[in-house]
Amino acid sequence: MSDNRSENRQWKLRARPTAMVGREHFELASAPAPSPAAGEALVEVQYVSLDPAMRGWLNDAKSYVPPVGIGEVMRAIGVGRVLESKDPALAAGDFVTGMTGVQAFATGPAKAWTKIDASLLPPPRWLSVVGMPALTAYFGLLDIGAAKAGETLVVSAAAGAVGSVTGQIGKILGMRVVGLAGGADKCRYVVDELGFDACIDYKHDDIRAKLREHAPKGIDVYFDNVGGEILDHALAQLRKKARVVLCGAISQYNNEGGVVVGPKNYLSLLVNRARMEGFVVFDFEARYAEAVGAMLRWHKEGKLKAREDIVDGIDKFPEALAMLYTGKNFGKLILKI
Amino acid sequence: MSDNRSENRQWKLRARPTAMVGREHFELASAPAPSPAAGEALVEVQYVSLDPAMRGWLNDAKSYVPPVGIGEVMRAIGVGRVLESKDPALAAGDFVTGMTGVQAFATGPAKAWTKIDASLLPPPRWLSVVGMPALTAYFGLLDIGAAKAGETLVVSAAAGAVGSVTGQIGKILGMRVVGLAGGADKCRYVVDELGFDACIDYKHDDIRAKLREHAPKGIDVYFDNVGGEILDHALAQLRKKARVVLCGAISQYNNEGGVVVGPKNYLSLLVNRARMEGFVVFDFEARYAEAVGAMLRWHKEGKLKAREDIVDGIDKFPEALAMLYTGKNFGKLILKI
Repeated sequence: MSDNRSENRQWKLRARPTAMVGREHFELASAPAPSPAAGEALVEVQYVSLDPAMRGWLNDAKSYVPPVGIGEVMRAIGVGRVLESKDPALAAGDFVTGMTGVQAFATGPAKAWTKIDASLLPPPRWLSVVGMPALTAYFGLLDIGAAKAGETLVVSAAAGAVGSVTGQIGKILGMRVVGLAGGADKCRYVVDELGFDACIDYKHDDIRAKLREHAPKGIDVYFDNVGGEILDHALAQLRKKARVVLCGAISQYNNEGGVVVGPKNYLSLLVNRARMEGFVVFDFEARYAEAVGAMLRWHKEGKLKAREDIVDGIDKFPEALAMLYTGKNFGKLILKI
Repeated sequence: MSDNRSENRQWKLRARPTAMVGREHFELASAPAPSPAAGEALVEVQYVSLDPAMRGWLNDAKSYVPPVGIGEVMRAIGVGRVLESKDPALAAGDFVTGMTGVQAFATGPAKAWTKIDASLLPPPRWLSVVGMPALTAYFGLLDIGAAKAGETLVVSAAAGAVGSVTGQIGKILGMRVVGLAGGADKCRYVVDELGFDACIDYKHDDIRAKLREHAPKGIDVYFDNVGGEILDHALAQLRKKARVVLCGAISQYNNEGGVVVGPKNYLSLLVNRARMEGFVVFDFEARYAEAVGAMLRWHKEGKLKAREDIVDGIDKFPEALAMLYTGKNFGKLILKI
């Protein structure tokens, strides 16, 4: 409980990366945390969620959210404890989640913070089991993927925050679920711990042959977190009326100059009367409670597991973020402040 | 009325093209036309429809129809006149449409032929105004594109058989319609004759700038017949919740070795919560009558125009087919047998 609010350490964007993101693009600054005004609360940030989408927020391009400005605190979702509140909705000691940014203290309107029940789930798990990546998996698979029992689901980055939840929800629905992950350890985890039917080690396996083996009837839903070569392999093995859920493209975010490699097998969508559809989880805000409720229940029943990869120390932020794009994290990547 | 059925000239596939299709891939053979058996009819083929999709039928790959076999008559949709019928459903003199193949006479089950009313529309127009490309436009725009009044529609190959009908249906629906076509003549035709709001000459205009100018609010529906660079430009200017209708990829069908260039801007689908969806018109067979009825009515009302580009002589088939991939035809390409 280091209520040293006069020294609020903050990671600010210094320069926009044009390829792999690194320490040189940020600076660690310090300033007193502003006292909350009427209707606001001051939160001591405990954990922030590090997610692949953050790389996109650094580009000066039109997207679903404005880019982080040069000199601004890096945008991030976090959990923390209310230190001081000038709004009746929150009291000191409450645990909350919201857009904290990568900093030690955050002040904002009380209505922008969502109270969480730390007795139900410890604070960092609110960023994994029912965090934004879990919500992304839920709406992506159910709404965009229109997933159904008996179908075959293939998920890339299957050991990651989104992929791991996607596959487990697929199993809960009664699907055949095949993951792709990098390395034998992650693959073992995906099958043995998370209960996927199979996992393909994209770093060592023949992806095409293994997809044929594990999805012999073809792919009904491909949930894509990576783009690139894996997307092309999945497109080549779609079933009729398949759905490709475009969730992300980790393999492409740090390409030199932002050039993305397009899926050369996209005409498989035509031949197979299939669709590829993108989505942004923020559009489903009105239904977050439904999803959180379902996932808390599944987690309690032991059907939905999560693994956190917690990096300790706000000073490690840039290197921790880069881990996401090289596959170095194992589980939901979280920065402990 | 050259009822020389003992000499049925037929174009057969000799070798599969690996790049641009040409005369070397076919041979013009001759054999007596088989007499119809019970339940069959013999048709004198008058016109056959030449369509971009035919290039795909030549590839030895799993697709929505089996490839044309080496030595088989080239598959084609045509119109003709019944010479002899062994089925009560058809009589000599009836006009019919169906899978005639590229040949002078075709014998097949009576139920595989659809009777057409030549007094309503002259036979070749059954291949344009209400032919397969027109049906493709109808179901692609209405069902896959979910087109709505007030939205902005962009159509590539706008002077072609599918694109010209797509854009006109868009206008009938009350959309803002922007076409892309190759050359000033085609562009003039698209705007002045077909009533599109604007046309971009992709061979000479700055596509990106012109799309911004003519679709200032962005694109709600992009109906893609060409793939390649134009698809990428359209993806870059999608509106939120846009639909990309994947109908074809003329620019890619004759690539060396069948290698397709993927759309590098596909992540615009994610940012804009948009979808790209393929379809095959044959899936809508149960609703052909609905579409033909609507299009005949629109045609009669002067709202749906068609232009045929008729190549005269069965011997010209290979060169006529190749015209589709170099943009040399102007209007629905039809081969007169």
